[in-house]
Amino acid sequence: MDNQVVIDSKERVDDLLIGQLKVIQHEKEFCFSLDAILLSHFVTVKPGIKAVDLGTGTGVIALLLAARGAEHVTGLELSQTMADMATRSVFLNQLDGKVKIIQGDLCNIKDILSSEGYDLVVSNPPYRPVGGGYISPNDNVARAKHEVTATLQDVVNAARYLLKYRRGRFAMVHLPERMAEILTAMTQAGIEPKVLQLVYSSLDKKPVMLLVEGVKGAKPGLEVLPPLVIYKPDGSYSNEIMQYYKEYR
Amino acid sequence: MDNQVVIDSKERVDDLLIGQLKVIQHEKEFCFSLDAILLSHFVTVKPGIKAVDLGTGTGVIALLLAARGAEHVTGLELSQTMADMATRSVFLNQLDGKVKIIQGDLCNIKDILSSEGYDLVVSNPPYRPVGGGYISPNDNVARAKHEVTATLQDVVNAARYLLKYRRGRFAMVHLPERMAEILTAMTQAGIEPKVLQLVYSSLDKKPVMLLVEGVKGAKPGLEVLPPLVIYKPDGSYSNEIMQYYKEYR
Repeated sequence: MDNQVVIDSKERVDDLLIGQLKVIQHEKEFCFSLDAILLSHFVTVKPGIKAVDLGTGTGVIALLLAARGAEHVTGLELSQTMADMATRSVFLNQLDGKVKIIQGDLCNIKDILSSEGYDLVVSNPPYRPVGGGYISPNDNVARAKHEVTATLQDVVNAARYLLKYRRGRFAMVHLPERMAEILTAMTQAGIEPKVLQLVYSSLDKKPVMLLVEGVKGAKPGLEVLPPLVIYKPDGSYSNEIMQYYKEYR
Repeated sequence: MDNQVVIDSKERVDDLLIGQLKVIQHEKEFCFSLDAILLSHFVTVKPGIKAVDLGTGTGVIALLLAARGAEHVTGLELSQTMADMATRSVFLNQLDGKVKIIQGDLCNIKDILSSEGYDLVVSNPPYRPVGGGYISPNDNVARAKHEVTATLQDVVNAARYLLKYRRGRFAMVHLPERMAEILTAMTQAGIEPKVLQLVYSSLDKKPVMLLVEGVKGAKPGLEVLPPLVIYKPDGSYSNEIMQYYKEYR
């Protein structure tokens, strides 16, 4: 039996091409991109875990973590508009037993969720510091792309608070240019970076994205995976990327 | 006119295939490897700079920095045996006006060299923490490969002491598995990581080496270069590596 949800005329329902997941998006709001797919695939998801997605936006990562076997995923989102849209996507996919969207500010995480109660925290946070580039006039899009409401340090601090001590995992997708800041912030928060992968459009160019996973309380020692290439020379998705879609079917 | 130096019967004189540089090595001691060549090429060497190579070993990096245009290079080496050999290599290449080898412990850098007096500090330090793997029975080889006498933190602290404030550069070759520790240590020492390159034997495998350069007092923002591949599929050196040798001719 399908669930029914109300869709605004400016909204659309996109097929994730993964499992049979669908996600509601709005033409004027931030829409998910490949970054979210890459993070959802990269992160270690053990069966039965409890996870949090910080700044869930459309909810796409929360939905995908549930599809990958998480027992429960909380998606935290600052924007009421985005949180409403993500909540309807959860219902549309009949995942309301597994995924819960909460409107709230990750900077106030202590008032929202319990400490050290989660196995996994993920985030596809705003990539650019304020002052670093064009700021979108749409508030929600600006907040999704620039550190207007939460900095890298805020995200890492929230993860530190939420994660179980020993074995709690934190994963993020971000820009390679912020790698030193990311690894330093994680290390200082006691979340030891353990796996890192750089994502390339083409191997003769600089990487375009960074995937990193850390473990709270772990010993130093980082596994750097082979490069992940998005496109074939003809511009179509590489076998690795196509594989991600197949794995969920 | 060639310089004459005395060579022990267990020593050999290896041609660096770069400029016309030669380096004396001993069959029982630590011999330089591709790591040193990669670091010497990777690092930014502006004409007329004063540089220090921490743990210079055979002196190969100090010789190459001079060949790349450094006005003066100090090679600091703990082992008296290695320092003697490196000093003879300097004379053999008639670079005694530009390169000076000093026997000393980088942990006591304040007693050996002046603070904030150098434009560039480089190091090809011991890669592995003590306790991490086989320890060579030869003391000097052990010290070159394991952090017996100096840790990563000691190397970074010495670099911080030596470098001029603003624009002083520090570069290192190391293992990718220690990337988080390296970037954190540099950041905490006020040497902001600015350029990083991963070195691969093959692009479908994990990287084998890490090259990183930081600038004292710089703002955050890391440029991650395209992957550097050592070998062609047929096992010969890649065009990039061959190019390094050509550039010095």
